[in-house]
Amino acid sequence: MKVTALAGGIGAGKFLRGLVRAVPAEDVTVIVNVGDDILMHGLHVSPDLDSVTYWLGDAFDRERGWGRRGETFRATQELAAFDPEAAWFGLGDLDLATHLFRSRELASGATLSQVTERVCARFGVGARVLPATDDLLTTRIDAVDPASGLALDLHFQEYWVRRRATDDVKGVRFAGADAAGPAPGVLEAIREADVVVICPSNPVVSVGPVLAVPGVRAAVAARSAVVTGVSPIVGGAPLAGMADKLMPAVGMEVSAAGVARAYADLLGSWVIDEADRGLARSIGDELGVPVVVTDTVMRDDVVAEALARATLSAGN
Amino acid sequence: MKVTALAGGIGAGKFLRGLVRAVPAEDVTVIVNVGDDILMHGLHVSPDLDSVTYWLGDAFDRERGWGRRGETFRATQELAAFDPEAAWFGLGDLDLATHLFRSRELASGATLSQVTERVCARFGVGARVLPATDDLLTTRIDAVDPASGLALDLHFQEYWVRRRATDDVKGVRFAGADAAGPAPGVLEAIREADVVVICPSNPVVSVGPVLAVPGVRAAVAARSAVVTGVSPIVGGAPLAGMADKLMPAVGMEVSAAGVARAYADLLGSWVIDEADRGLARSIGDELGVPVVVTDTVMRDDVVAEALARATLSAGN
Repeated sequence: MKVTALAGGIGAGKFLRGLVRAVPAEDVTVIVNVGDDILMHGLHVSPDLDSVTYWLGDAFDRERGWGRRGETFRATQELAAFDPEAAWFGLGDLDLATHLFRSRELASGATLSQVTERVCARFGVGARVLPATDDLLTTRIDAVDPASGLALDLHFQEYWVRRRATDDVKGVRFAGADAAGPAPGVLEAIREADVVVICPSNPVVSVGPVLAVPGVRAAVAARSAVVTGVSPIVGGAPLAGMADKLMPAVGMEVSAAGVARAYADLLGSWVIDEADRGLARSIGDELGVPVVVTDTVMRDDVVAEALARATLSAGN
Repeated sequence: MKVTALAGGIGAGKFLRGLVRAVPAEDVTVIVNVGDDILMHGLHVSPDLDSVTYWLGDAFDRERGWGRRGETFRATQELAAFDPEAAWFGLGDLDLATHLFRSRELASGATLSQVTERVCARFGVGARVLPATDDLLTTRIDAVDPASGLALDLHFQEYWVRRRATDDVKGVRFAGADAAGPAPGVLEAIREADVVVICPSNPVVSVGPVLAVPGVRAAVAARSAVVTGVSPIVGGAPLAGMADKLMPAVGMEVSAAGVARAYADLLGSWVIDEADRGLARSIGDELGVPVVVTDTVMRDDVVAEALARATLSAGN
């Protein structure tokens, strides 16, 4: 069974580990958000691509919740000695190698897709991992500084990591999206999949930028009969991240129903957590699709595998 | 006594440690070679500026002969796991912070001079350290691959670090020199110094690029009465580096006399090692300047201080 997954960060990483236990990794294509990508001190950092790669390559630090296992932060600590403000984005020493390699390859003319393939090879990732686009697409947050009342136009990472999501969000934009094109293989992977899965990722800033690449949303909608998704919202709150702050800003209700509604044109089925069992019927009635209720809190790979199997059953 | 020193890498670093014991550090200006600078994986690396800064800031690894004390190489080792070929330039984890900081500041519009001042402040360097130029000036080596006979146009670091100085050198060029200007303060520091010292650095690729910045050589020549220099060649061979391979390619004899001859228009006096005592009279006769013979092999800061004092006496 060929599976294509749309993915963001940590929720997607956990789900994908289950997915490659449920089906052979070589049958899985993951289309990953690049809206979080940022040029940091001259290096091209791709947080979601790396997160997915580290999870699938079993290099992820499950305890910390981001970055690589066995990581150290000597370069970043030393950078803080130059200027504490410069070190707001914590680049691990091992993680830095990924960014050095990526920046080097991009400067030599490689595309982000080509670099991603090489990074995946280094970590023995069996699944095919594709950036949603090889073009520049950047998630910008229109916000207001609550202290000063000043309007801010922030890179997503500035909003989330540097300023710790303390600003009032007024809107979310995907700069460059109009001029971007899907990376090679993206549309084909959606067209040829037996099941298309929308991972339990933030619908605004993880899945949103993927769907904002011209052609992608239409390609997914054309396959809606086999499109399924897992709600990242459980009991009215995200399991990780800041979806609860961003969803209201774009008019989404922070609930398993709110996320489903954002994908209304795309879904053939929808998977929600036991905690939201009470919403199953109303979501199903509103969207006209079957709603599957199961355990979506992926404490380990075994739970993630069961969730992946339930999701694939829903989609197929 | 105000002292201005023209400097390259390791020999200069050792000498400067002695110099700031001989005179107050705040009376010392160091004008440093930037011909070795290289954009590495997207980061701006300034090997000689960092070497001088680490030596003066007591952060240098005297044992290894380059880089920082207490250094680790996790990022570079990990980069080698991606591609051994990509990791040819060994960037230490602590050293990386300097390059991240520099690249970040340059991208924000700072000049190399301004960044250098901030890097020096972080290491508590009391002397003023100036890049010879804020413009792009790159030492290129015209060489021939001895195995294939193919002509090569190499960045200095490719010649020296990547290919380990195994190619036959045909010539040395300073790309960008014609369009470069002296960094702020460089000409003033030469004009206003009581003594100008040419450090015991490679005359071709360390001091050469400094003198190649338009206006610098003339400024030094105009002060020749107080210009002195220390030979980097002792007993017919360099104490460190590859001067013996590069000097013949540009027609210099590999000797304390050959280096002096390269500076013939600049020197008011010249300092050579005890090992070369036999050359003192002929060099003095040829150049018409006093030649001082002393111990120039700087095993520690005490020897370096004695050498600095002898050099200042010669120049003043």
